[in-house]
Amino acid sequence: MVRVLGIDPGLRNLGWGVIDAEGGRLRHVANGTCHSTPGDLAPRLLSLYRQLWEVVERYTPGTAAVEQTFVNKDAVATLKLGQARAIALLVPAQFGLEIGEYAPNKVKKTVVGVGHAHKQQIDHMVRMQLPGVTIHSPDAADALAIAICHAHYSRAPQLRVAGARP
Amino acid sequence: MVRVLGIDPGLRNLGWGVIDAEGGRLRHVANGTCHSTPGDLAPRLLSLYRQLWEVVERYTPGTAAVEQTFVNKDAVATLKLGQARAIALLVPAQFGLEIGEYAPNKVKKTVVGVGHAHKQQIDHMVRMQLPGVTIHSPDAADALAIAICHAHYSRAPQLRVAGARP
Repeated sequence: MVRVLGIDPGLRNLGWGVIDAEGGRLRHVANGTCHSTPGDLAPRLLSLYRQLWEVVERYTPGTAAVEQTFVNKDAVATLKLGQARAIALLVPAQFGLEIGEYAPNKVKKTVVGVGHAHKQQIDHMVRMQLPGVTIHSPDAADALAIAICHAHYSRAPQLRVAGARP
Repeated sequence: MVRVLGIDPGLRNLGWGVIDAEGGRLRHVANGTCHSTPGDLAPRLLSLYRQLWEVVERYTPGTAAVEQTFVNKDAVATLKLGQARAIALLVPAQFGLEIGEYAPNKVKKTVVGVGHAHKQQIDHMVRMQLPGVTIHSPDAADALAIAICHAHYSRAPQLRVAGARP
C-alpha cells in the first residue's frame, strides 16, 4: 500500500488530495484547498507553505505528484503559477518524498481516457474511482486526479498497463 | 544600524549579499552565490532553500530585498525564475523579515544613477560604496546592489533623498 499526495498548484487556490493505492485499488483519504489572499507575495508563499506542510505532516504520504505547469502567453500568470509550484515541490521534497510530475493532458488521459477532457468529466471519473468521496473544490478534484495518475504510473512494473508508462 | 540581505534570484545561481547600514554609511558583511545543478526541479529548489536558510541563519539580517522578476518573452525562463524567486521570498519570510522588492531599473538608478547601467558600472559602484569588498560572482554583485538600494529606501524618512522614494 502506498499513500499518494496529489497537488494542483496555484497561488490563490492550491488543491491537494490524498489517496491510498494498493495494486489497482484506490481509496480516498482526504482532499482540500490551501488558500492565499491577494497581497504581498512573500506572506502568500509563506502561508501556502505552512498549510501544505500541515497536510503532509498530518497525512504522511509516501509519494507525491504535482501537475506540470502550463506555460501560457500570460507571462505574469506563468510567473505566479511558477512561484506557487515551487512551494508545491519544496514541501514534499523537505519530507524526503519522491515527486512525480505529470502534464495536464497526461493526467486527463489516465483518469478519463482522453487528453482533452472537460472539468466535469474529470470530476465524474474521480468520483467513480474514489467511491463516497466529498470533493472540496475544483482544485482539489484536479489534485485527486493527479494522485490517481501517479498511483497508476508508480505501481509495481508488473501491474503497469503496457504502453501506458510516462 | 540595520543589517540588509539582498537577493538576486536564479535557479542555477542565486546571488546574495549582506551589508550593514547606519544612516548613510554602508559596510560590507558577506556575499556569495547559492548554486543548484540542472536536473529534477524539486531537489534543486530544496538545495537552494537550504543554502539560503544557512545564509539567513548565519548573518541574521534585519530586513531583506529581492529583485523584481523580469517577465520576458521566454516563458520557460520566466517560469524557472519564478520558482527560484519563490525560494528567495519564502526563506526571509520564514525568519519574519520584511521583504522589499525592487525593479532592476530602480536598483540600477539608485546604485549607479541611471536606469540602464551596464554590469561593469554596477560592479564598479558596488565596490565604491563597499570599500574592500571581494565580490564572489556577478550574481552576488547584483545582490549587493539590491541590498544597497534597500538600505537607501528603508532609511528613516528624514534621511531619504527627496524624490527618491519608491
